[in-house]
Amino acid sequence: MNVEEYMKTLGQQARLASRRMASADTGVKNRALEAMAKALDAARAELAEANALDLQAGREAGLDAAMLDRLELTPARIDTMIEGLHQVATLPDPIGAMTDLNYRPSGIQVGKMRVPLGVIGIIFESRPNVTVEAASLCLKSGNAAILRGGSESVHSNQAIARCIAQGLKAAGLPEAAVQVVETKDRAAVGHLITMPEYVDVIVPRGGKGLIERISAEAKVPVIKHLDGICHVFIDQAADKVKAINIALNAKTHRYGTCNTMETLLVHQAMAAEVLPDLAERYQSVGVELRGCARTLALLPGIKAAEEVDWSTEYLAPVLAIKVVDHLAEAIEHINHYGSHHTDAIVTENYTDARIFLREVDSSSVMVNASTRFADGFEYGLGAEIGISTDKIHARGPVGLEGLTSQKYIVLGDGHLRR
Amino acid sequence: MNVEEYMKTLGQQARLASRRMASADTGVKNRALEAMAKALDAARAELAEANALDLQAGREAGLDAAMLDRLELTPARIDTMIEGLHQVATLPDPIGAMTDLNYRPSGIQVGKMRVPLGVIGIIFESRPNVTVEAASLCLKSGNAAILRGGSESVHSNQAIARCIAQGLKAAGLPEAAVQVVETKDRAAVGHLITMPEYVDVIVPRGGKGLIERISAEAKVPVIKHLDGICHVFIDQAADKVKAINIALNAKTHRYGTCNTMETLLVHQAMAAEVLPDLAERYQSVGVELRGCARTLALLPGIKAAEEVDWSTEYLAPVLAIKVVDHLAEAIEHINHYGSHHTDAIVTENYTDARIFLREVDSSSVMVNASTRFADGFEYGLGAEIGISTDKIHARGPVGLEGLTSQKYIVLGDGHLRR
Repeated sequence: MNVEEYMKTLGQQARLASRRMASADTGVKNRALEAMAKALDAARAELAEANALDLQAGREAGLDAAMLDRLELTPARIDTMIEGLHQVATLPDPIGAMTDLNYRPSGIQVGKMRVPLGVIGIIFESRPNVTVEAASLCLKSGNAAILRGGSESVHSNQAIARCIAQGLKAAGLPEAAVQVVETKDRAAVGHLITMPEYVDVIVPRGGKGLIERISAEAKVPVIKHLDGICHVFIDQAADKVKAINIALNAKTHRYGTCNTMETLLVHQAMAAEVLPDLAERYQSVGVELRGCARTLALLPGIKAAEEVDWSTEYLAPVLAIKVVDHLAEAIEHINHYGSHHTDAIVTENYTDARIFLREVDSSSVMVNASTRFADGFEYGLGAEIGISTDKIHARGPVGLEGLTSQKYIVLGDGHLRR
Repeated sequence: MNVEEYMKTLGQQARLASRRMASADTGVKNRALEAMAKALDAARAELAEANALDLQAGREAGLDAAMLDRLELTPARIDTMIEGLHQVATLPDPIGAMTDLNYRPSGIQVGKMRVPLGVIGIIFESRPNVTVEAASLCLKSGNAAILRGGSESVHSNQAIARCIAQGLKAAGLPEAAVQVVETKDRAAVGHLITMPEYVDVIVPRGGKGLIERISAEAKVPVIKHLDGICHVFIDQAADKVKAINIALNAKTHRYGTCNTMETLLVHQAMAAEVLPDLAERYQSVGVELRGCARTLALLPGIKAAEEVDWSTEYLAPVLAIKVVDHLAEAIEHINHYGSHHTDAIVTENYTDARIFLREVDSSSVMVNASTRFADGFEYGLGAEIGISTDKIHARGPVGLEGLTSQKYIVLGDGHLRR
């Protein structure tokens, strides 16, 4: 069987399984999740063995330390996977929920019922624990999943896949509800993203290169974000202490995450008051600053920002700083240079807060809070399959609901259209 | 300026206008709608003149009577356009609505705000009144629109476009918020659907050929449905009178609409009771019947259905009839041969109704009501830009809400991520 036939077979099996998953009882789905947790716990030795093979191959292939770290399945990470399964089991089941059943003048009663999307293709890079996260969210939301992990974690993913299959089987659900692509052939991804007859949506998780390639080539809708160029704007009416703390937290809490601030905007009336203090604190933790001309006037000695800095996601201890004339300029800058991910204003002014909330066109817009809060868990979604910076279908952190749709239901008593 | 540059210019202007539309006040948008209604009323003579040119050209080009009828702007149709504008003005403004603002354990308050999609491209065939409908829905939902009507209605569309522009201007909104493509060059559509930088979503309205071509070539999400292969299933536990009335209404209320029944499924236990009566009534109004073997045994003399009949949208007084063994077979038939549009069960049985509602994978699923109810006005959306049989973003009749998205908003008091 060549890779195209192999992927087609996975697709057909997933489509069939998705029909059964769509009407699976909540209790049955939860039992499968709990059985998976049990299977993972029982397979710790096997998981370690499989992971060791991947780590060995990774070292031989010259993977860097960060990559090897992401690849490693430590006992603590296995605990986290198991805990994640328990948590998804406790989340409310979105499927079948009926809402807004209202009577119409014609006499019919019209409402909506939440339904699964069908088959979800998930493409991710080295971290093998994504296999469990993604599988559990797809299962709970009544979807079938086809998972394609990085080729460097193939043994770990297969060992995890066996635990997932055990869990499905124990609950009497079709094992094809979660399938892990077992070939290392890179053409598998190309097929997965161009089978609209078998796959309803693709969720890529990984570096920008991967996501760009998938978006360009997919014939299936893609839930994605490319960049996290997030801003904090310190308004004229900002509280100085809140401004400094939020600007520090948004940049330095973690450097490599998509919701980390990459550009700080400061109202001209606040610049002299906050920038020198902030610069000292950034520099004390090793953050490199790059400023506009007005920033340089206040912070001589820092590097001048170039045009490209305003649209760069550093993912590193580097921060671009720009002084702006007014709120409107800050909003214009964010909508123009940002990536529509997460942007925050620090202000005590009611009207400025309202304008910023309304006019910034990003998936998360915040007042007096750190951009680092943009996250499915922090938002109370219980779990997160990714963050979308698109506007179609899902925007912002995507939890179970993002993997569902709604159909209309109409209840009548023999009603006819006049 | 060639057609590519022309379309790019429209796109750039629309993108700019969309920013202003996103934060336009509800009152301003409503004033624009009312001013458009006034302008249309004042331009009746001009509209008639422009329409006469299109009708003349259409007759010369040999358009058929149905096409010429759709093309005609009668005084009554102008009244309907004006009335439609008043109605859209009275609809609640979805934009800026904030919902589900809940506090999280971290102390932040998280909710959602409804926002426009941005720029909507609408591609439609001969009926010029679609220009007003589409423009008004895009405007009320805070979007900018680029409208491309059929080349046969170009004079009518331009006359309508002038009234729309007058309305926007009177309310102080950018005239580029609604642009009508003025070239007859067919390449314009090809450019419109491949400019993701300027257009956020495409809504094609027209024949299957148009929609298939657009879906295949678009680089932008498309809200669409291709077919309306709708079913009524008369269950074992159906009330005979309701069953006959619904089956008649769903087929004969109008033949050419997408929510008209094309296949009737009948439980074997009800077939002898309902089919002879039904056949007589269908035949008395000239509906041609095509049946499976068991149907033919009850209705000798009708045509035998072939495999292709189960997946044909007749849009004509033709009906395929199949007798099934049980509910599960009916559901399987609908999910396999149907187009996921609208399907109804007629039953008095509670459990059968629940199973049908849950398991039929269509954008509208009904109990004891005619499929003809699947319509934005009947569902209380106030208006309808189209019906989607996709699951991503919008499913079923699409009203104002389908032209919007939601962003997350986070309200804090200096909250930091721990």
